[in-house]
Amino acid sequence: MNLEISSNLSNEVVQAIRRVVGPGRVELHEPTFNGNEWQYLKECLDSTYVSSVGKFVDQFEAEIANFTGAKYAISVVNGTAALQIALKLAGVKAGDEVLISALTFIATANAVTYCNATPHFVDCEERTLGMDVLKLREYLSSISSQQSGQCINKITGRVIRAVVPMHTFGHPSDIEGLTSIARDFNIVLVEDAAESLGSFYQGQHTGTFGLFGTLSFNGNKTITTGGGGAILTNSRALARHAKHLTTTAKIPHAWQFRHDEVGYNYRMPNINAALGCAQLEQLSTKLASKRELLRRYQAAFIDIEGVSLFLEPKGCQSNYWLQTLVLDKKHSKNLNSILETTNKIGLMTRPVWDPINSLTPYRNSPRMDLSSANLFSKVVINIPSSSGLV
Amino acid sequence: MNLEISSNLSNEVVQAIRRVVGPGRVELHEPTFNGNEWQYLKECLDSTYVSSVGKFVDQFEAEIANFTGAKYAISVVNGTAALQIALKLAGVKAGDEVLISALTFIATANAVTYCNATPHFVDCEERTLGMDVLKLREYLSSISSQQSGQCINKITGRVIRAVVPMHTFGHPSDIEGLTSIARDFNIVLVEDAAESLGSFYQGQHTGTFGLFGTLSFNGNKTITTGGGGAILTNSRALARHAKHLTTTAKIPHAWQFRHDEVGYNYRMPNINAALGCAQLEQLSTKLASKRELLRRYQAAFIDIEGVSLFLEPKGCQSNYWLQTLVLDKKHSKNLNSILETTNKIGLMTRPVWDPINSLTPYRNSPRMDLSSANLFSKVVINIPSSSGLV
Repeated sequence: MNLEISSNLSNEVVQAIRRVVGPGRVELHEPTFNGNEWQYLKECLDSTYVSSVGKFVDQFEAEIANFTGAKYAISVVNGTAALQIALKLAGVKAGDEVLISALTFIATANAVTYCNATPHFVDCEERTLGMDVLKLREYLSSISSQQSGQCINKITGRVIRAVVPMHTFGHPSDIEGLTSIARDFNIVLVEDAAESLGSFYQGQHTGTFGLFGTLSFNGNKTITTGGGGAILTNSRALARHAKHLTTTAKIPHAWQFRHDEVGYNYRMPNINAALGCAQLEQLSTKLASKRELLRRYQAAFIDIEGVSLFLEPKGCQSNYWLQTLVLDKKHSKNLNSILETTNKIGLMTRPVWDPINSLTPYRNSPRMDLSSANLFSKVVINIPSSSGLV
Repeated sequence: MNLEISSNLSNEVVQAIRRVVGPGRVELHEPTFNGNEWQYLKECLDSTYVSSVGKFVDQFEAEIANFTGAKYAISVVNGTAALQIALKLAGVKAGDEVLISALTFIATANAVTYCNATPHFVDCEERTLGMDVLKLREYLSSISSQQSGQCINKITGRVIRAVVPMHTFGHPSDIEGLTSIARDFNIVLVEDAAESLGSFYQGQHTGTFGLFGTLSFNGNKTITTGGGGAILTNSRALARHAKHLTTTAKIPHAWQFRHDEVGYNYRMPNINAALGCAQLEQLSTKLASKRELLRRYQAAFIDIEGVSLFLEPKGCQSNYWLQTLVLDKKHSKNLNSILETTNKIGLMTRPVWDPINSLTPYRNSPRMDLSSANLFSKVVINIPSSSGLV
């Protein structure tokens, strides 16, 4: 009987998705190249500036800053590198703790680890799939104390240096609440906006509220540079430092090679930036397509009981990077059946990440009660979301 | 009088270079794209696989392995990342020391630092511009002792875990001597072959003697992928581990996101690999051009006293990545004048790197006597070296 219900729901989900995306194999998210990609790549090759320097890097950075409203954007090799450098410049030091959501891609935690700091896992809320602000405030009030203007974890004795909300699937977290927590507890706010290019919280672009925000242009993102990322900040000094650190900390000189600190080879190559410039020109169109795709999914799923589409939080405009189904709790046992049925016939779907605290490298990291994150990992499914589906 | 001599030598150098490269601005090293670059980039865009996966990554890795004779090649985002992962997999741990040449690009030292280890600087020899094997052996005999099969620095108490020769400007270091030191002192050999794609030591490709070798495909290298690098190894298990670590350590699964260790987002994007596949097809031609360029420089400089062209060490075939002038010691005072005169008129030249131990972040790192490295930094000049100059 259970099996039958499960099978029925799986079939209904398949049919609903098929009504929107049509027949054949459909990826979860694939890029489309309908603009000047080819022209800019050709221009880049013809200039021979495919690597460290070139006009597309500067242009891409200017356009990212312009679109997001951040004063400065520094393009880098990927979103993980962007977050690592942002955390470093936000003052994260060896032995510190950094608050991150338990429900995020592992790169968020790894960037913390690269700073020799420890991720400290925070629970999520149903409304945003991002950090639960009320729960976090209560938790910090209980486990932390203020010492010389620093937030100390009373249990571990370590400094809680930064809080890194991630805007899940493009849906803005409760940034107002998090800004307020950061202020009240003397913790630096750094936004992992890897998934939320084109997402706004009360009209302001995600990634521009914290001291830094970071973006990703991986192949599965709303726009892509092949591999790439960016650091956003409103501070001129921090922007300069970020550029310096991500370009091996070389002191500018026509022929001398002098470096004044341990830097990183994290610049975005010009050829990847060329692709990005062409993609950026299509961003508004892609965002509109994603909203239209949501509308079509809503229509297709309207009569299916037990499953609903996740909608942007109130006051927010999401990029709907990944379209998201949420199963009613009582249907959570159907998750695997739906994943198996859809993937088997070439409709690519996936669950939300396993909570990172459940993964081997982070099993012993500090964490609060993560009951919501654990629940969401059993009821959330991403379905095909490419803007090209519209 | 001194000024006059200096000015004369500078002018002679300028005239000799001009005889080879002709008039106008000439870069130190710029790439040329004379093959299938267009076609492969277009194919890559048309496939939509520009990012994490795609056929060009696999093809590039197979062709790099084939060309170098390494059993396995793993393509990554740049040479620094390649070396960081190679060192990590070679067992370099926090608190270890790693022997590197004092004369190398700072990335060699930074890769050691990323492992939370300390670079320990080694002097160079005139014959190769690489590590001085005799001096290193004598030094290690004096400062190290063997404890439980590990090489311990008696002064710092730390383990000397690895030795990382760099094949300067493409000229193979004394690999036989270094292999023997590595064996005798229980130190792992990892080759930084960033500059030496196409360079052979007694018929065997550089980067294939150590447990790992690492390559770079930066825009200034013999062939380029925009930004990129590769890890070479003959061990299947290590190759698999390197691939795993550089692709976020994700356990393969159609929809689950599980990662079993702290990995890195270091894969080479498919679009960069597409460029690399086209470039690799021209590698032999480029190498031949570089040898012809050397021949032309030799003819142009034959009658100029006080300066000579650096030639490949005996038994080696160098890629002549950067053509190199060596001033007679008594002319070292002319270095700056030559650099200024050439760069001012658009003939890009540069000195060898400042010895890394002289740079702020590494001033306090352990080192042996570095008198040769210090001397070379005053007498070595790289001159325009692009294969396109022939």
